[in-house]
Amino acid sequence: MAKKFIIGVDLGGTNLKIALLDLKYRIKDKNILSTQVCLKKENLISTIADAINKIIENNRIKRTDILGIGLGLPGPVDIKRGLVHFLPNIAGYTEVNFAQILKRRLGLPVSLDNDANLMCLAEYKLGAAKGFKNIVCLTLGTGVGGGIIIEGKLYRGSNDAGGEIGHIPINERGPRCNCGGIACLETYIGNNSILREARRLFRRDISLEELSSLAKKPDKRAQALWSKIGGRLGVALVGVVNLLNPDCIVIGGGVAGAGKILFARLREVISRQAMSVQSRHLKIVKARLGNNAGLIGAAILVKERVRL
Amino acid sequence: MAKKFIIGVDLGGTNLKIALLDLKYRIKDKNILSTQVCLKKENLISTIADAINKIIENNRIKRTDILGIGLGLPGPVDIKRGLVHFLPNIAGYTEVNFAQILKRRLGLPVSLDNDANLMCLAEYKLGAAKGFKNIVCLTLGTGVGGGIIIEGKLYRGSNDAGGEIGHIPINERGPRCNCGGIACLETYIGNNSILREARRLFRRDISLEELSSLAKKPDKRAQALWSKIGGRLGVALVGVVNLLNPDCIVIGGGVAGAGKILFARLREVISRQAMSVQSRHLKIVKARLGNNAGLIGAAILVKERVRL
Repeated sequence: MAKKFIIGVDLGGTNLKIALLDLKYRIKDKNILSTQVCLKKENLISTIADAINKIIENNRIKRTDILGIGLGLPGPVDIKRGLVHFLPNIAGYTEVNFAQILKRRLGLPVSLDNDANLMCLAEYKLGAAKGFKNIVCLTLGTGVGGGIIIEGKLYRGSNDAGGEIGHIPINERGPRCNCGGIACLETYIGNNSILREARRLFRRDISLEELSSLAKKPDKRAQALWSKIGGRLGVALVGVVNLLNPDCIVIGGGVAGAGKILFARLREVISRQAMSVQSRHLKIVKARLGNNAGLIGAAILVKERVRL
Repeated sequence: MAKKFIIGVDLGGTNLKIALLDLKYRIKDKNILSTQVCLKKENLISTIADAINKIIENNRIKRTDILGIGLGLPGPVDIKRGLVHFLPNIAGYTEVNFAQILKRRLGLPVSLDNDANLMCLAEYKLGAAKGFKNIVCLTLGTGVGGGIIIEGKLYRGSNDAGGEIGHIPINERGPRCNCGGIACLETYIGNNSILREARRLFRRDISLEELSSLAKKPDKRAQALWSKIGGRLGVALVGVVNLLNPDCIVIGGGVAGAGKILFARLREVISRQAMSVQSRHLKIVKARLGNNAGLIGAAILVKERVRL
């Protein structure tokens, strides 16, 4: 039997990643494009189709050896119908059937899911949450995304829209969120809020990377800011822990790189404020698959759907 | 084949209920004792065993025709081992193996679970949430309990301690909760908090029943108080809706009787603040099985464990 492959696609607000993976989820080739440049030049779906064709040709792979295409999208999706309801950070894609359009263009089966769900699936099957059963997975970035594994299976909710940890309110009153909510976790710990607080604190523009290295120096103000972020994340997760009693929480994304202070404060809040039976055996770990988690998750999705 | 029966037991902070049910979950006989009186007079487990023996004898049922005993307890439990970790409102029962003790005394199989989980199971199988798939169930009382059905199955969490909706924080700062948490939902909408707010508002002691009838008159202050309670419950449930994307939320317990104002405000907050894909098709309904939900859930637990 010839070797089989899967194409993984991870669409983000910043980057569009296309990868060729084998059935052991090893990345054999990968291309990264700028989402914004693609949007300016032409239709996004055409760009994705062209990029997929290119990676297939460059690697001289027969179409019959490709199991399918897995696609991670940064917005709420309808898994069965293969469409995206809307993309909060990419205008112009409302109720668009990505799966059908790509399938027609490429003649290959297409599966899609929310990007945070795919990251969660990857960390569960191959990453930091391997061996656990009830898992909550977060990605900290411009948005705060999440995914949930229940009894070893990705839980998507009644309308494929569950897992939105970033949109748990942590106060009755507070900043208005882009989602329409009030005082959502994301309004406090999304990258833009962190940068805004840092600017106020240091009276100049400061990047997340600099904020992280300042904290390591150690700079007291930077440390206090990361600790505050960890505390706020902790309040939302106390609710999640009491509600879902998971055995593992995985935290990934850029801000997770801030490291020790954020995790220390987060663990402190959970061990002090969450209920004892739920928090006693809980593991809180850093994501392990980094930027490739979405691509790997997309490949897992394809393989699990097309049982060989 | 002789007719078979199940014994359901529902232990609450106020009442201890024992019922005889048939396999269609119809209650054939029921006794209600005062939990506090039982505690003063003798050991609680002896009282439960005696009450079970009495209901069996009074109904002239052979022990071989009893499928088992189902027991709902108001605290965190270990289902497999059959023990309760502790009972927040009944002192002196830490890590007590109710199932083993009762089984030894009665010579009948015993299953146990958290009382809110059993209420949830009952409302799902026979009550307000019948036909739904992903359900969140709340009981509003002295404590605010909850249960979760995921993909048609009771979800208990990694340590049988999930579903604690009453212990989701709705603010970063706020009142200290009995559970050790800060600003838990229960500290705002548990019966004692409602009574305290009502006393401040009306400058006298006032019961929940009076507060409900005042609201119907309509008394503006009582209406404003119920609306405030609905709003606070709404904030916690916005988080639950965004996280779990359930298709149905069931609300039961005494306070749910306050009726229209509470539900109206709750629905308003969820439709305005929860994410649109999650809230669009969500049903929010009143529990239908009332005080018998726990007993019926206990019987379902027994029947589902002892498959005939």
